[in-house]
Amino acid sequence: MKTNAGRFFEDYRLGETIAHAVPRTVSGGERALYHALYPARHALSSSDEFARACGLPAAPVDELMAFHLVFGKTVPDISLNAVANLGYAEGRWLKPVFPGDTLRAESTVIGLKENSNGASGVVWVRTRGLNQRDEAVLSYVRWVMVRKRDTAAPAPAPTVPELAGSVAASDLVIPEGLSFVDYDLTLAGEPHRWDDFAVGEKIDHVDGITVEESEHMLATRLWQNTAKVHFDATNRPDGRRLIYGGHVISLARTLSFNGLANAQMIVALNAGAHANPCFAGDTVRAWSEVLDKAETAAPGVGALRLRLVAMKHGTEPFVTRSEDGKYLPGVLLDLDYWALVPR
Amino acid sequence: MKTNAGRFFEDYRLGETIAHAVPRTVSGGERALYHALYPARHALSSSDEFARACGLPAAPVDELMAFHLVFGKTVPDISLNAVANLGYAEGRWLKPVFPGDTLRAESTVIGLKENSNGASGVVWVRTRGLNQRDEAVLSYVRWVMVRKRDTAAPAPAPTVPELAGSVAASDLVIPEGLSFVDYDLTLAGEPHRWDDFAVGEKIDHVDGITVEESEHMLATRLWQNTAKVHFDATNRPDGRRLIYGGHVISLARTLSFNGLANAQMIVALNAGAHANPCFAGDTVRAWSEVLDKAETAAPGVGALRLRLVAMKHGTEPFVTRSEDGKYLPGVLLDLDYWALVPR
Amino acid sequence: MKTNAGRFFEDYRLGETIAHAVPRTVSGGERALYHALYPARHALSSSDEFARACGLPAAPVDELMAFHLVFGKTVPDISLNAVANLGYAEGRWLKPVFPGDTLRAESTVIGLKENSNGASGVVWVRTRGLNQRDEAVLSYVRWVMVRKRDTAAPAPAPTVPELAGSVAASDLVIPEGLSFVDYDLTLAGEPHRWDDFAVGEKIDHVDGITVEESEHMLATRLWQNTAKVHFDATNRPDGRRLIYGGHVISLARTLSFNGLANAQMIVALNAGAHANPCFAGDTVRAWSEVLDKAETAAPGVGALRLRLVAMKHGTEPFVTRSEDGKYLPGVLLDLDYWALVPR
Repeated sequence: MKTNAGRFFEDYRLGETIAHAVPRTVSGGERALYHALYPARHALSSSDEFARACGLPAAPVDELMAFHLVFGKTVPDISLNAVANLGYAEGRWLKPVFPGDTLRAESTVIGLKENSNGASGVVWVRTRGLNQRDEAVLSYVRWVMVRKRDTAAPAPAPTVPELAGSVAASDLVIPEGLSFVDYDLTLAGEPHRWDDFAVGEKIDHVDGITVEESEHMLATRLWQNTAKVHFDATNRPDGRRLIYGGHVISLARTLSFNGLANAQMIVALNAGAHANPCFAGDTVRAWSEVLDKAETAAPGVGALRLRLVAMKHGTEPFVTRSEDGKYLPGVLLDLDYWALVPR
Repeated sequence: MKTNAGRFFEDYRLGETIAHAVPRTVSGGERALYHALYPARHALSSSDEFARACGLPAAPVDELMAFHLVFGKTVPDISLNAVANLGYAEGRWLKPVFPGDTLRAESTVIGLKENSNGASGVVWVRTRGLNQRDEAVLSYVRWVMVRKRDTAAPAPAPTVPELAGSVAASDLVIPEGLSFVDYDLTLAGEPHRWDDFAVGEKIDHVDGITVEESEHMLATRLWQNTAKVHFDATNRPDGRRLIYGGHVISLARTLSFNGLANAQMIVALNAGAHANPCFAGDTVRAWSEVLDKAETAAPGVGALRLRLVAMKHGTEPFVTRSEDGKYLPGVLLDLDYWALVPR
Repeated sequence: MKTNAGRFFEDYRLGETIAHAVPRTVSGGERALYHALYPARHALSSSDEFARACGLPAAPVDELMAFHLVFGKTVPDISLNAVANLGYAEGRWLKPVFPGDTLRAESTVIGLKENSNGASGVVWVRTRGLNQRDEAVLSYVRWVMVRKRDTAAPAPAPTVPELAGSVAASDLVIPEGLSFVDYDLTLAGEPHRWDDFAVGEKIDHVDGITVEESEHMLATRLWQNTAKVHFDATNRPDGRRLIYGGHVISLARTLSFNGLANAQMIVALNAGAHANPCFAGDTVRAWSEVLDKAETAAPGVGALRLRLVAMKHGTEPFVTRSEDGKYLPGVLLDLDYWALVPR
């Protein structure tokens, strides 16, 4: 059997590190596609000149592009037989990624717990993205529910890792040299500085994007994500292609430019849930809530902890769950992240 | 309110200059996408070698790409609340744009006239695209009809700018170093030189492109154009997404390669009307008419003033208006421009 | 008549060489689009670092991208009036193509044979792709059936070129410097070396891709292929756009990563048939068969001769023809090529 059938729950060993395949060199091509696929307008990853005025050598690629590229590499080893992508934690961006960089990825199994039904289990991995100098550019924990190949296979001792509810502000990594002292609000597109945001403040990002089959497939292939459900209309009984959850993350984040144009860089992913599946034809909208604020040691740079919720058109903003505590059917994504903002 | 609601008619002041947000660095990625989105074949922006043989340091990006990038930046400030994009005039390309350049844009309000209904008015702006050396790469006048926020707001003194019916041949800016003395007609794809074109000559460009939703959205996002009507199927009562007029301009211009392969560079936009809206599913065709001819000071370089008309499949070429003077329903675009041609 | 009506059968002269128009400089943008349009994962054309570890100066663009770019240039001169694309032979990749290279193409007519109906004939051309140093990067023979403009035009003396059934292993050109001595199987994605493949072995590549209109059009335009049938829904009586055969080749080749991840570089195209047309909505699958094996002089580099068959979902793998010898309706492509594999 030459093809990859993917790993099943009993194939994972606690503590093992899996080196993922297919390193990838990024160029201005990936950036241009990011601008075509999403309404990406944050100035720092759009303009070399703007980035230089902020102390960086050039415009880094969007942080979510780095995330998608790393995530995509993990799919054949981690989530090919996944039933569900359950959550994210302790995500930190550690180095900006620039055109010319080559990314690879590896994941360490940090938790295993068989489900009581004996047919599947939860696997926790800490994934790291590395550049051509073997520097970590990104690290995050993800846990997925994975089928067992053989329900009779013995269950491993259950190990559930202890994960931080959110990345502490003191653990945020600010890119070397970053300074917002000479930050140009006009070029960035909005006048709101760190001081203008209050914890508890909510922003309806107003705009919407109706999603097409070809767009989510172009994006998902670009990240070399091979999960069949995204590309093969014969894979599900209903003949629909499930949209990669990361596509919704990027849609929501780029829609949030309208109101959060100055939340320039994502530096941490605290938590995230893909509340409901997204399909072509859905019109995606987004809203945000300011969860926390923190100062940083970098000149002129503050941090906002933001909740980003994506929803389908027709869903009211600012509400995510029904009385029974379940996500409303129109909620697609509930994400918790830290971003850097000029003070 | 953190989100941008856009400007209304009463928000514009005669003489003010608006600096538009989100500078953008272009790369080979944008060029590749231009080739994927449109049947772009003009050799000068396709091949570095061809461009060098014509005296340029490398292949510039397509002139319309520069236009779209600059236009896109103006949308949040100029046309978010526009009812209609009424016209263009006095457009001139002033410097070629090369991969690596960073573009920004600014617009000066040069005219204001409230409509008699008191609910809207016409705003004239002169927009300039600037590169990272603050050199103007493009300048054009556009006028749009914009809604008033408050119909009771007082009308400004009406000022209608005097605009040239077309850019004078003597005002055309030829890129520094451009020479068509060693122009290779075979590589360019057609044998017709400046002398082979006659004023009044009409060319049916024969080919057609059936437009898809995802294509016009990819293009329009690539230019960071944020107008809701292009992306959000819930925005119009009929559930259709209006295609960005510039997408039709690029479709028509690239279709015109077949017959005008040697009309290598657009140097001026004299006038333009988006005669009817275009929607996904339409098959776009194009025809051209030679309106004028001019010599230039550059070696081997002539100029043709061309009318470019885009129409839907089923519309006869060479006729644009019915007896009552109105555009026929199948006519999409009526554009008047100057292009450089080998002599 | 300024537009190109294409050549008809009687316009070709045995021995003439046609220089094709529109040279093209490739960049990281074309590579990024290749990754977005196809599930391309072969490490050698994905990562500069991986390519350097294999002795190349950087990651070349996918060999099929070079093929499509060269093929696209030939369309206006060779196949605009083609009734059918009949076959390929003696294809060899002679130099890798890197971002920054500029490609052009020329074709020599090596065979002509009028059909007995007097309405069309077969034209054989040997096409060469050349880079900016006039080095041949690719050479292949293609034959097409072309309509006559005038059925009364006299038939040329029939000349049918003698073509090799396959490229001899000794004629394969290995890129200068290529070495698989330090080949990293983990990064490449699969453990199977040249020794692990046996002649006669068949691999079902398992995955499938449902094709969208916009995707095949984006791809085909990217190669500056202008054949009307791919873009214009009004061109065929059934209102369907015929998908460029090369799009199916790239889909099948990239799907074959799953099982043939180590078949890194295509070096020869022995034969190929587009068995049935492909349309948007089809879900494409692929299987391969090992036809032959050969050693090469390059360190650690072996060659596999592979048959690659693309089929529509619902077609059983490993069978291509019905009892009467005709291709089954679900078979799209039957390709025979040589690829380089680590020993």
